[in-house]
Amino acid sequence: MASLLLSRRDLDFLLYEWLDVEALTKRAYYADHSRDTFDAALDLAQEVATEHFATHNKRADAEEPQFDGERVTMIPEVKQALDVFAETGLLGAALPGDVGGGQLPGVVARACFAWFQAANVGTSAYPFLTLGNANLLLTYGSPELVDRYVRPMLSGRFHGTMCLSEPQAGSSLADIVTRAEPQDDGTYRLFGNKMWISAGDHELGENIVHLVLAKIPGGPAGVKGISLFVVPKFLPDGARNDVVLAGLNHKMGYRGTTNTMLNFGEQGAGAVGYLVGEQHRGLTYMFHMMNEARIGVGGGATALGYTGYLKALDYARSRPQGRPVAAKDPQAPQVPIIEHPDVRRMLLAQKSYVEGALALNLYCARLLDEERTAPETADRERAHLLLDVLTPIAKSWPSQWCLEANNLAIQVHGGYGYTREYDVEQHYRDNRLNPIHEGTHGIQGLDLLGRKVVMQGGAGLGLLGATLGETVARAVAAGGEAAALGTALAAVAERIGTVTATLWGTGDPEVALANASIYLEAVGHTVVAWMWLEQFLAADGQEGAFYDGKRQAARYFFRYELPKTAPQFGLLASLDRTTLDTDPAWF
Amino acid sequence: MASLLLSRRDLDFLLYEWLDVEALTKRAYYADHSRDTFDAALDLAQEVATEHFATHNKRADAEEPQFDGERVTMIPEVKQALDVFAETGLLGAALPGDVGGGQLPGVVARACFAWFQAANVGTSAYPFLTLGNANLLLTYGSPELVDRYVRPMLSGRFHGTMCLSEPQAGSSLADIVTRAEPQDDGTYRLFGNKMWISAGDHELGENIVHLVLAKIPGGPAGVKGISLFVVPKFLPDGARNDVVLAGLNHKMGYRGTTNTMLNFGEQGAGAVGYLVGEQHRGLTYMFHMMNEARIGVGGGATALGYTGYLKALDYARSRPQGRPVAAKDPQAPQVPIIEHPDVRRMLLAQKSYVEGALALNLYCARLLDEERTAPETADRERAHLLLDVLTPIAKSWPSQWCLEANNLAIQVHGGYGYTREYDVEQHYRDNRLNPIHEGTHGIQGLDLLGRKVVMQGGAGLGLLGATLGETVARAVAAGGEAAALGTALAAVAERIGTVTATLWGTGDPEVALANASIYLEAVGHTVVAWMWLEQFLAADGQEGAFYDGKRQAARYFFRYELPKTAPQFGLLASLDRTTLDTDPAWF
Repeated sequence: MASLLLSRRDLDFLLYEWLDVEALTKRAYYADHSRDTFDAALDLAQEVATEHFATHNKRADAEEPQFDGERVTMIPEVKQALDVFAETGLLGAALPGDVGGGQLPGVVARACFAWFQAANVGTSAYPFLTLGNANLLLTYGSPELVDRYVRPMLSGRFHGTMCLSEPQAGSSLADIVTRAEPQDDGTYRLFGNKMWISAGDHELGENIVHLVLAKIPGGPAGVKGISLFVVPKFLPDGARNDVVLAGLNHKMGYRGTTNTMLNFGEQGAGAVGYLVGEQHRGLTYMFHMMNEARIGVGGGATALGYTGYLKALDYARSRPQGRPVAAKDPQAPQVPIIEHPDVRRMLLAQKSYVEGALALNLYCARLLDEERTAPETADRERAHLLLDVLTPIAKSWPSQWCLEANNLAIQVHGGYGYTREYDVEQHYRDNRLNPIHEGTHGIQGLDLLGRKVVMQGGAGLGLLGATLGETVARAVAAGGEAAALGTALAAVAERIGTVTATLWGTGDPEVALANASIYLEAVGHTVVAWMWLEQFLAADGQEGAFYDGKRQAARYFFRYELPKTAPQFGLLASLDRTTLDTDPAWF
Repeated sequence: MASLLLSRRDLDFLLYEWLDVEALTKRAYYADHSRDTFDAALDLAQEVATEHFATHNKRADAEEPQFDGERVTMIPEVKQALDVFAETGLLGAALPGDVGGGQLPGVVARACFAWFQAANVGTSAYPFLTLGNANLLLTYGSPELVDRYVRPMLSGRFHGTMCLSEPQAGSSLADIVTRAEPQDDGTYRLFGNKMWISAGDHELGENIVHLVLAKIPGGPAGVKGISLFVVPKFLPDGARNDVVLAGLNHKMGYRGTTNTMLNFGEQGAGAVGYLVGEQHRGLTYMFHMMNEARIGVGGGATALGYTGYLKALDYARSRPQGRPVAAKDPQAPQVPIIEHPDVRRMLLAQKSYVEGALALNLYCARLLDEERTAPETADRERAHLLLDVLTPIAKSWPSQWCLEANNLAIQVHGGYGYTREYDVEQHYRDNRLNPIHEGTHGIQGLDLLGRKVVMQGGAGLGLLGATLGETVARAVAAGGEAAALGTALAAVAERIGTVTATLWGTGDPEVALANASIYLEAVGHTVVAWMWLEQFLAADGQEGAFYDGKRQAARYFFRYELPKTAPQFGLLASLDRTTLDTDPAWF
């Protein structure tokens, strides 16, 4: 039976037939790899995700972690699954060999990890956070910190967190007040409260490595005075550090992941912390890693949308209900609901969202590989720049549209979809987190329009246009339907340029950014249309139901979705001031 | 402090300043009423909803009803609230005096009931279902059935249900197989299984009156062979009827309302049932009452969206976070998030959805009053026809867009909105039911495009166009901004006519109906734009923040929302065949 988590056929198409991941094995860095090792990793991920993660997804939701004031307890399946996961070596699969990693291309590792997110996003969040933490320390931490904390994290003995937000500072990190006081021995003592810390406490391993943003007294105000510290739950001598769990947040979904309020230095002497890199550069370090974290969040949203789609498809094929519009005989047998055009519309929408999002997710992961291992400096810089522009979209688009896919998956199931006996309502609840964490939807809009498209004199946006233009050129050269799609995409892509120029032509950031979220959504739909044109071209000339499906989903996206950008660009081009001109007293 | 459930100011505006509900008191039927009695009813509803319903909304969600195989138990606050509700007399407020009702205009009663839906949609579902049941029996039941069942329902002693769906027949009622065997004494014995029966079992009153669709053996096939029966949980002699609770459905939201699988006649001799009206006319009776039920569902969706909006607004006014785009000083104090344009955009969107939906809901309730009590037959028929066309929109539009309002309410709250400490995540879960029950979104689309706009040679659609045109004419006559909005609406409304003609001009129902859901959504947005133009006109020339808010929300809807219909009408006009041409094997 085909998996209801992800489609391996689709992954193979994206990795091998489209992104040509096999070509990476020609690079020295990946010389130990081959399609066989890639396939083995994908097989292993599917197997472990299916047998150890999916199996407790519902139970972890129904029986969320508890805090009795002393300890956090949770169902034992979580630790069992994570222990199996640690044995697979998948956590460090894409890391360099010299730290015990497998030097697998990141794009393959991303595909592997998507299996776990589809199977159980709550349990997979623990290694997800640990890996993000380890990646940051590998880049910016001292060899000592790497030895003491990264290696045990990669072997599964320690877990990691990212402690950014505070009760009074969520999106506005400039306003954090946690302070880090330098000590004579070179360590620091931290005092403050952190909020929304996922995996902030649990007993899944021997230690928890918190990466904490804090301000060293006397430093610059705002974000320029933020430094980054390692604050372990247990100190090297085994003593408990002064990091106290103040409480668990009780969430709508994502319930398997503990989400915590943590107090640092509550007992008086301060929590012992070790500076990462240099003082006052904490936010830079954090944001350098944010690209990868945001692509991972987009990947999680995609995985939840994907498994919901496959389950809706399975239901639609097996559930008889009603008859075709043209059928007159009430005694004829009922047909599977996939025969109804409106159900097919909902399935096509889901397919176009989740496969489009997966393509974008893997495309970005492929850019990360390029950024790190391309032989030519120019290629590495190009990949970095393009990824910078795409990151807010790679985070936000799947968070919005794969949530919508889950919404449609419920709708396809009818009343059953609203019950907890089926899976899709949980996917919908789990996925609702994604437009909020790792930078809200609104923050991504400001990042794209306020920073990414204007940086380096607009070079990023220019590169996006040029890269998309290369796809259009190939489509036009291919002729026929591909050319028609390419022409349609080119027209919309051109609007991105003119509208961006209009917005920034005002010289008034307030007006330019007033509808940054709409801009994010319009550019996002355009980018995903580009991903569909890419897939259409990769499928061009290929026969069989799989390729027919790719072509049809591309058509769906171009006919039903891409035109939604027209009124969005129209609004943006009008320099609409509605939100600016609304007096708060009017609500 | 202003209520966070609904805005009484808005209700007063809609009822008195726009719909001129006071004028109804000139009709003999409402002669005992005045603005004072209307206000008293609204005051009472707000008070009881606030003090007895809102107070256990979260607990009823967290501690859902339990079934131990024998009995259903639930938190005691539900019965306490319903007992208070029964004492208010609000259940039968709009019913005729000769059955103990209050002869209150239905539009005022609808506004009253919205308070309960906003406060606690799960608990308010019990009287909602009871009233629908009582309304049906008052219209089609014998005097004996009315005496025996309706009077105790109106006094709060009995509760009611509607038993339509079966496990194999959800949307497709033609396929129900529950059978009703006639007995010599004129009663029937029912055998079959019913699914998704809300309030199907509980111990909130002395009896439960099930209205059950079933087929009498030998009758016509399909929907033409469906009859309607009263099947009480307890028979007149006090004995238990053969209606057995097979289990409770465990839902994502709406958890306070028991939702059941019921087995009729499981013990062998059959469940005793009493025929309502004539044989084989059951579906006609049910659908006659469906307009009111569907408007009520739309009202529930609206109420949940409305309270979520008010809570998001309250949060946005009180939560400091970040600084304006133009602010450079990181040491300046943070501003309330309502100062951020993107937050204002989300609040304007919510306001335009929930106030637009409430206007539509009350407009339809007002048409129900007109249908029943207008002095002229022509006016009654006109109201009936217009209501017929509007009903699928009145049901589906709030179910879609006030759910989206709840989505935005979560987003305004950020991480807090995702926790169960705040209310909005529950509203979102509760509201997700509304696009499913009482006819799914897809069913409403088929109803609108396949039935309502073609019935009577298109008279319904013509009437909608003419009625909307009257508003446009008033707007144009008013000049200025109103005229501009009117012109914009007229252009979109014209597309409804041309697109409908194009669709049905094919002569092929399969093609015409392939995108019925998109049609529903496009016409829905146009209708709500009309509701906003009506409100804009009602506010025209009035000064003050309340009226400024109405005008601004109208502008928002015309600038951000109405243009979304352009690509929808474009798709429809193209007679798009994407869904029809998709082979199920391609997924």
